[in-house]
Amino acid sequence: MKKLINHPEQVVRDMIEGVVLAHPDRLKNVPDTSVLIRADAPVRGKVALVSGGGSGHEPAHAGYVGKGMLDGAVCGEVFTSPTPDQVLAAIKAVDSGEGVLLVIKNYTGDVMNFEMAAELAEAEGIQVTKVIVNDDVAVENSTYTTGRRGIAGTVFVHKIAGAQAENGASLQDVERVALKVIENVRSMGMALTSCTVPAAGKPGFSIPEDEMEIGMGIHGEPGTHRAKIAEADSVASQLLSLVINDMGLQEGDRVAVMINSLGATPQMELYVLNKTVGQTLKSRGIQVHKTYVGEYMTSLEMAGCSISVLRLDEELAELLDADADTLGWK
Amino acid sequence: MKKLINHPEQVVRDMIEGVVLAHPDRLKNVPDTSVLIRADAPVRGKVALVSGGGSGHEPAHAGYVGKGMLDGAVCGEVFTSPTPDQVLAAIKAVDSGEGVLLVIKNYTGDVMNFEMAAELAEAEGIQVTKVIVNDDVAVENSTYTTGRRGIAGTVFVHKIAGAQAENGASLQDVERVALKVIENVRSMGMALTSCTVPAAGKPGFSIPEDEMEIGMGIHGEPGTHRAKIAEADSVASQLLSLVINDMGLQEGDRVAVMINSLGATPQMELYVLNKTVGQTLKSRGIQVHKTYVGEYMTSLEMAGCSISVLRLDEELAELLDADADTLGWK
Repeated sequence: MKKLINHPEQVVRDMIEGVVLAHPDRLKNVPDTSVLIRADAPVRGKVALVSGGGSGHEPAHAGYVGKGMLDGAVCGEVFTSPTPDQVLAAIKAVDSGEGVLLVIKNYTGDVMNFEMAAELAEAEGIQVTKVIVNDDVAVENSTYTTGRRGIAGTVFVHKIAGAQAENGASLQDVERVALKVIENVRSMGMALTSCTVPAAGKPGFSIPEDEMEIGMGIHGEPGTHRAKIAEADSVASQLLSLVINDMGLQEGDRVAVMINSLGATPQMELYVLNKTVGQTLKSRGIQVHKTYVGEYMTSLEMAGCSISVLRLDEELAELLDADADTLGWK
Repeated sequence: MKKLINHPEQVVRDMIEGVVLAHPDRLKNVPDTSVLIRADAPVRGKVALVSGGGSGHEPAHAGYVGKGMLDGAVCGEVFTSPTPDQVLAAIKAVDSGEGVLLVIKNYTGDVMNFEMAAELAEAEGIQVTKVIVNDDVAVENSTYTTGRRGIAGTVFVHKIAGAQAENGASLQDVERVALKVIENVRSMGMALTSCTVPAAGKPGFSIPEDEMEIGMGIHGEPGTHRAKIAEADSVASQLLSLVINDMGLQEGDRVAVMINSLGATPQMELYVLNKTVGQTLKSRGIQVHKTYVGEYMTSLEMAGCSISVLRLDEELAELLDADADTLGWK
């Protein structure tokens, strides 16, 4: 297994120690947990946001912890939901008395464990609300999911709901904004290669040298189909069309776009994809407010990408543009 | 070839178009060139910085164009030096009359072509000074290099000399600061896998499944030796020791550290490496002022990393901490 790790079973723990050593001014680890929170948490007078899930999607989610985004991230084992006690630890560590919003990607394990943690927290008198992100238009149900999966579009929820919380909004109002993002964001991905979960020691599946998988999930869950590798122009058009059609995007709409690498795909290729995405949107009369290109929601060292589109109104555009100070948002 | 591109010969052109479509507020393309410059260039009253080289190292170098860092980046073909006329076009596009500093990574082709461009610019009455970065401690001479190679440490030159230029310093003073960084920065890398230059269509070399190459260059140039894959702890210690010894780092010194991915190595693994790096420096009484973890100087989709250490004095620390607004610096 070609990985720069020590023991597979301690990789998440090692990562967390490495994060805290690198960024003690930004992040701290809640003792005896796999939770990373803002160095200044709990932030007085502010609704707190907690997200997380299995590790292996870095910079999601600890890379979005900081001013203007999340207050805490729960780092599960690689591609494995964190347990309810870990989520509860995060909630308790960040709550300042104004309540906590949980941002959950739609995977059955995540939903179950975050919900259980919410109940435990409420039993301790903490106000908790949750939203479930299901931006992936690829498939209706999937290996670990009932309904659509949550993928890179989740980062827009962190950014926008986080900005609203930073503005001093109430828990109910932060939830309202998060739901508005979820309503208006769609994503579609594809993969060229597999990736290796350290504990497994070998790739979870394989894609033949001349093929790609359209609609693959961020844990390697099956997509819609395999096809011969096509040019970037064709791949970008396919993914974008599915997203545009699903969300009913129309001439005159204003959007933010995210071209996300699943890990091994170089920035060069992401920008080649964006050439087609940018030109297509322009030709359809859709106004691109801002484009984000890079690693936002990865799948270890998988080669591939996802394209996310968020329909903006004035409120969402303003919150998207608000300052945020985290490692992963740029 | 598993790449999201169109035609290999147009990949750099496509990338540049994708960059400008994504970030029109930040970057513009000098017409009919492969040069990207600040959207507000030339910046009146400021010394300008130009860097560049072969493409395939993104975010280097266009990702460092912006306030507080570079004014222009010349994007050569993949792993190929840009021609003198391209470098000249960059110099002319960013010069505001205060002069231009060229930051060159030490590769024979880059040095020759940037020097030729400097002479051409001077003939047109533009003041040009150049610095050559040679931070890689791995080998004395290499495939494309006489002397040591320039790798990820170059980004510290962009950051610090760029901050000094933004302060309104003279060309001579910006050069002085750049040379101070070069004097005090060292790097060492390693690779687990090869990468594929699009025009070649296949990997330039291969590393057996159970081996790694220590000291490999960012174009796949040979390193010092191959070895069986070791644990991250051991790899990090080896690389760091070579850097520390070469620069004669001592107890009480203050440093900045960069843990750089060559492309396919996930952030998770970089942070695992940083656990060892951070602990080792602490145990040696070396003060880590700041740690940078991520993709700073890549080699397409190569798996591997480099570790850079920069010795800081008050002046360098202050310039390192100054605000910069670019896509690749975080």
